[in-house]
Amino acid sequence: MTDTRTAWFDGNFQPLADVRLSPMDRGFLFADGIYEVTAVLDGKLVDSASHLARLERSAAALEIKLPLTIAEIEQIELELVARNGLTRGTVYIQLTRGAAERDFVAEPDKPTLLLFTQAADMLASPAVKNGARVITMPDIRWGRRDIKSVMLLAQVLAKRAAKEAGAQEAWLVQDGYVTEGASSTALIVTADGTLVTRPNSNAILPGCTRAAVLALAERDGVRLEERAFTVDEALAAREAMLTSASTFVISIVQIDDQQIGDGRPGPIALRLRELYLEMARGTN
Amino acid sequence: MTDTRTAWFDGNFQPLADVRLSPMDRGFLFADGIYEVTAVLDGKLVDSASHLARLERSAAALEIKLPLTIAEIEQIELELVARNGLTRGTVYIQLTRGAAERDFVAEPDKPTLLLFTQAADMLASPAVKNGARVITMPDIRWGRRDIKSVMLLAQVLAKRAAKEAGAQEAWLVQDGYVTEGASSTALIVTADGTLVTRPNSNAILPGCTRAAVLALAERDGVRLEERAFTVDEALAAREAMLTSASTFVISIVQIDDQQIGDGRPGPIALRLRELYLEMARGTN
Repeated sequence: MTDTRTAWFDGNFQPLADVRLSPMDRGFLFADGIYEVTAVLDGKLVDSASHLARLERSAAALEIKLPLTIAEIEQIELELVARNGLTRGTVYIQLTRGAAERDFVAEPDKPTLLLFTQAADMLASPAVKNGARVITMPDIRWGRRDIKSVMLLAQVLAKRAAKEAGAQEAWLVQDGYVTEGASSTALIVTADGTLVTRPNSNAILPGCTRAAVLALAERDGVRLEERAFTVDEALAAREAMLTSASTFVISIVQIDDQQIGDGRPGPIALRLRELYLEMARGTN
Repeated sequence: MTDTRTAWFDGNFQPLADVRLSPMDRGFLFADGIYEVTAVLDGKLVDSASHLARLERSAAALEIKLPLTIAEIEQIELELVARNGLTRGTVYIQLTRGAAERDFVAEPDKPTLLLFTQAADMLASPAVKNGARVITMPDIRWGRRDIKSVMLLAQVLAKRAAKEAGAQEAWLVQDGYVTEGASSTALIVTADGTLVTRPNSNAILPGCTRAAVLALAERDGVRLEERAFTVDEALAAREAMLTSASTFVISIVQIDDQQIGDGRPGPIALRLRELYLEMARGTN
């Protein structure tokens, strides 16, 4: 099937199939770039301000100058959603330092900014109804996971291992503690009903969906603890779940070979998913 | 000036300026790729078999299938050197998992293989005569540094910091021990004349030039120790040096604010450089 999507690249809307990067782009040669993924639901951007603020933070951390304002980038996102008739899916934004002769310290004339959309029915994923399985793996990522960079090879290898094991996600483990999932935040509910997730630091990405879900949980009267938890604690948890921009809240029903709870999506995960969807749709 | 270099991409020789990557290439989206840099001296590839063997190892580690044999890739390198009239410089090879719709676990139909050349007079660099300055920085890279992947953002940030400080390289430090330089192997000569460098492991790249230089040193009667060394030991060393494919052997005359030895390139570094150049030129 021909790809008829419109993308935004090099200052223009153009067919995604026509976009051609320079092989000297530092995103390709050095992973010298950042990205964001924002969900689209009912044709609307979900939690857009939070994602754009993080884009700005990541760019500043790498000293890459955004070629457009955050407001202009959001307008492009909305225009892509409209042009591509996207009702459910994601908008992807990638910013790199640009293209220049290969040299670690080259400073290109201008950054590369690419946006495209992907259709996906995140409400119909089997994991929504059945819950997800995760495996645990050593966290071998670099030390600046707070920057949403395209340094994703460790995550690729973890996701490949998860898929190979019949799981949907890999939980990454450092010094016995879960840091986060390869592309999601990791949360558990302890025996006494406390929702536990690791505090933000260089060890994890400050998840936009994480922040929104924690705020919704607090407002709903759920007891919260931001602290690291061990794999053993997760295996013994009453519930486990993940949050991410493209899947919202997904219950986890198995970690490695251990069933979690009764093996079905837990009530707190289901409740938080419902609250998040209401927020995303502007109905609460 | 118009770039008239010929590159090899997508199965064909073509002008480098005409090469256009897909924005869906996983090298760009996920740093899901590897590379090699081989020096060219007097129009000949330096230590080519060693670089090609490492390319093969890196590809296998990521389960990316090389689209050509090692012998075929070497023929392309030689053809590029000839077409571009390159006498001194480097040939760059990059292999990625290929282009596919963005998804961590996508398996593209075919990998992307790109080769291009860069002219550089590595014999005339000021650091050859004057020695180089390095700064020390925390090593925040990922855990599989033995794979020569394009996961290079930590190295980019380290090199930017070095340049900012007026240095040519950054030595990366983990748990008090030097791992290696951002794009080179780190070596010191102790007070008793022993050449010390860290043994190969996941913590460093198994340097091709490192291996060749260690073999030459041994044959020349230099006492060798493959062990990790601390920053303090380096600051007190009689000599310090770096090896890399594109610079061969460079003496280090300053680490952070500390002069090394008498501040001029040391005799062992100069001797090893001479031996390496003889080997590279096939004159010994």
